[in-house]
Amino acid sequence: VTRVRLGEIVDALGATLVGDPELIIQRIAPLDQADAGSITFLAHARYRSQLGATAAAAVIVAEPLADAAPAGCARVLVPDPYLSYARLSQWWAARVRLRPPPGRHPSAWVDPAARLADDVSVGPMAVIGAAAVLEAGVEVGAHAVVGAGVHLGAGTRLAPRVTVLDGCRIGARTLLHPGVVIGADGFGFAPEHGTWTKIEQLGAVVIGDDVEIGANTCIDRGALGDTVIGNGVKLDNLIQVGHNVHIGDHTAMAGCVGIAGSARIGAHCTVGGGAIILGHLEIVDRVNVSAATVVTRSILKPGHYSGVFPFDENAAWEKNAATLRQLHALRDRLRALEKKP
Amino acid sequence: VTRVRLGEIVDALGATLVGDPELIIQRIAPLDQADAGSITFLAHARYRSQLGATAAAAVIVAEPLADAAPAGCARVLVPDPYLSYARLSQWWAARVRLRPPPGRHPSAWVDPAARLADDVSVGPMAVIGAAAVLEAGVEVGAHAVVGAGVHLGAGTRLAPRVTVLDGCRIGARTLLHPGVVIGADGFGFAPEHGTWTKIEQLGAVVIGDDVEIGANTCIDRGALGDTVIGNGVKLDNLIQVGHNVHIGDHTAMAGCVGIAGSARIGAHCTVGGGAIILGHLEIVDRVNVSAATVVTRSILKPGHYSGVFPFDENAAWEKNAATLRQLHALRDRLRALEKKP
Amino acid sequence: VTRVRLGEIVDALGATLVGDPELIIQRIAPLDQADAGSITFLAHARYRSQLGATAAAAVIVAEPLADAAPAGCARVLVPDPYLSYARLSQWWAARVRLRPPPGRHPSAWVDPAARLADDVSVGPMAVIGAAAVLEAGVEVGAHAVVGAGVHLGAGTRLAPRVTVLDGCRIGARTLLHPGVVIGADGFGFAPEHGTWTKIEQLGAVVIGDDVEIGANTCIDRGALGDTVIGNGVKLDNLIQVGHNVHIGDHTAMAGCVGIAGSARIGAHCTVGGGAIILGHLEIVDRVNVSAATVVTRSILKPGHYSGVFPFDENAAWEKNAATLRQLHALRDRLRALEKKP
Repeated sequence: VTRVRLGEIVDALGATLVGDPELIIQRIAPLDQADAGSITFLAHARYRSQLGATAAAAVIVAEPLADAAPAGCARVLVPDPYLSYARLSQWWAARVRLRPPPGRHPSAWVDPAARLADDVSVGPMAVIGAAAVLEAGVEVGAHAVVGAGVHLGAGTRLAPRVTVLDGCRIGARTLLHPGVVIGADGFGFAPEHGTWTKIEQLGAVVIGDDVEIGANTCIDRGALGDTVIGNGVKLDNLIQVGHNVHIGDHTAMAGCVGIAGSARIGAHCTVGGGAIILGHLEIVDRVNVSAATVVTRSILKPGHYSGVFPFDENAAWEKNAATLRQLHALRDRLRALEKKP
Repeated sequence: VTRVRLGEIVDALGATLVGDPELIIQRIAPLDQADAGSITFLAHARYRSQLGATAAAAVIVAEPLADAAPAGCARVLVPDPYLSYARLSQWWAARVRLRPPPGRHPSAWVDPAARLADDVSVGPMAVIGAAAVLEAGVEVGAHAVVGAGVHLGAGTRLAPRVTVLDGCRIGARTLLHPGVVIGADGFGFAPEHGTWTKIEQLGAVVIGDDVEIGANTCIDRGALGDTVIGNGVKLDNLIQVGHNVHIGDHTAMAGCVGIAGSARIGAHCTVGGGAIILGHLEIVDRVNVSAATVVTRSILKPGHYSGVFPFDENAAWEKNAATLRQLHALRDRLRALEKKP
Repeated sequence: VTRVRLGEIVDALGATLVGDPELIIQRIAPLDQADAGSITFLAHARYRSQLGATAAAAVIVAEPLADAAPAGCARVLVPDPYLSYARLSQWWAARVRLRPPPGRHPSAWVDPAARLADDVSVGPMAVIGAAAVLEAGVEVGAHAVVGAGVHLGAGTRLAPRVTVLDGCRIGARTLLHPGVVIGADGFGFAPEHGTWTKIEQLGAVVIGDDVEIGANTCIDRGALGDTVIGNGVKLDNLIQVGHNVHIGDHTAMAGCVGIAGSARIGAHCTVGGGAIILGHLEIVDRVNVSAATVVTRSILKPGHYSGVFPFDENAAWEKNAATLRQLHALRDRLRALEKKP
């Protein structure tokens, strides 16, 4: 069981405490699940009434809303409680989680021509290929595969069972989750008398610093140039990134998104889960695409874009969907009526 | 070649036989592919005419439809032929499939602090972390990774190349297919001056008994509490389950479904392939969601829900889709016409 | 650095050269990124103006468009420049890429009862099961798992971390990318008093010659018969192919497609990214399905089919989507107006 003095947390967050620094905190919990051993947080004014009812020992809260806390609840005052919760989660994880020990697990296989910084950790059964370069603090999880000539920047972590294929380059402090595949061949074929002739994919994948890539997400290598993922990009699970795609800095995408080849996506964008972005198009900076939207042409103006069939009870949907197949004809009939004197 | 007396099958199913128990059965086959060495089944009255034409040696059939079988075809009478076919498939698999031998393959790596029941089978190159607990009859396939502190209940099977990360707990008789990732980080970040600050995911994944999870499906660990998969849940391949999602008992989902964080899905639901369920919403028990439907708000009433753009020949779709972008304006024009005297 | 005489390339392509065969080529590049060490190609007349501005040393071009090249640019004349580019990419890859050495890596585990041709290459940590047959020239990447009784035809390559489960059969010259799962159980259950009883999947997966399957794509084994992938089929990443699906020769599908069980898809089809194809339906030869289209019924006529909600600025979409839920009622109102005298 973790036991932490509240005062330690307050110091770590650089916060102001209204309450007893000797209180013992055992967990972080959401408002509605917090108990007398919990610290919680008020992320938004709309949860204010939940704060009044919380049993938490302490709450991270912005000063204007601090009065909503129950009398016995210590207040940890910060300007942005959600951000401070994020920081606290990192501080907490650093205390409670085991870090893998530096050094190579005896069951790993490291090519003699690979260059690993002294403190690199290589997990059980991991495979590291020739001429790979792993900088200080890199962690390679169990069963991860690092191809020949791969470069992993300082502090980058590969979870178990990540694959980074030959020649791909990843920056610093980047985190890849299990099952990620970096650098498989892009999908390129030339038609030839009804069959497909393979276009060998001669580029690589280049990933920036502070990137996070979710489980089983795939990023294909470029056909000629590289596929490029900017700094601070966050990709959720089961995302497909086609060859020669560029994703700008600090863009975030939820799970199950598919991006076809050569799309160029700007910085500071967000893409909702299950969205599909077609190839050879451009999306400028600061575009937000709703979940499950299909982007079929370039988006050249920042803003929020959507395109989803609204769901309904099946019977109602069936009627509307059937009518939708006659919509253009309906428009013509409406036009005809309008022209009637 | 498998050779089984029909009488053995009849006994295994607890069925009534009209025919010769000494018939030799070599395979189970669908009605239209069955030959003189096959046993087949009639799952539904709508296939009755196919039964009349079958060459099968025997048919599993409900009594009211048994007369539809050809004269030479033995009848295995049961109340629910499809269920009996499922049972027969299990009986058959138990006869013909190799089970992995108990014990640890010499190439596996098992942490000395892991606790494995005597008959646990650990396949080639598998990795089992510290303090993991594997109960009786557990099978861990080749290249599977079991993290520190993971609990696997009795009879649970991990196919080759499954990953279960630290601290996740799985019940009894659950089956995970290759490439499954249990317990990767949920997708949580706090915005900070245009960048994303990671929220460490401190919860775990808790999976019930008799669950099946398809190839390359991902279930993320919770941010604070756990992600929870109930008993008897069946998930197909390439499904994304976000952090803190709850899925109720005996709910089934087809491939490529995406579920965003903190969605709560009831028991006895079905979700069709490719559906997307947004986060922080509720779906009550006994809801059926059609394939490719996007659930954007809570569903509080049991029933069948859909929302898919009907496909069409491309030219017709183009016209209707273009008109759809003017639909609200068309409604206004219709309203104006209606108001005309 | 690769350095190739232009004359060698011309010979390899069987092309006609207008220019100096002694030119040194260091890379293949697209028109707009080519420099004085590059060979480029003009795939389509619509890029003709880019050709005029290219800095490339040489261009692969069809004779009718060759005049568009700048004066100093050598012309490599071929009938189909895109196809010749594909061939050149293969020729180039064969020169610059390391092929894995024949023989078994000492860390691999090969069952004594497996049969491997002399020149088969087995990578680090790979696992090959009993009675597997690997024909001449097969390459098995690091961490790949080949189940018992699997057959891999001559020249077939498994990238790192591919899984091919027991009894599946793959033809010659087929390429599987990392994370591919061949032969996981199909999703089959019989309902039983509100729970699901497993139908054991007794079939296998049969894949033809010259197939390519993208990263993390899953192809399930058949319930009774087999799941069948024809010759020359190309599947991109993160595709789900359900049990007993048949895909005809030379059909190509982009990433994130989902195909439900027992669908039969013809030859020479294309399916765009993120499309969903429901089960137990038929698609004839030479059908093109647009990205993100949901195919809910059989397509019995060759042609191009689509069904996607057009995306729009969010506010416009919201209005049109809300009106769409009243579309059938609007049609009735239109009809009533039309009947007015």
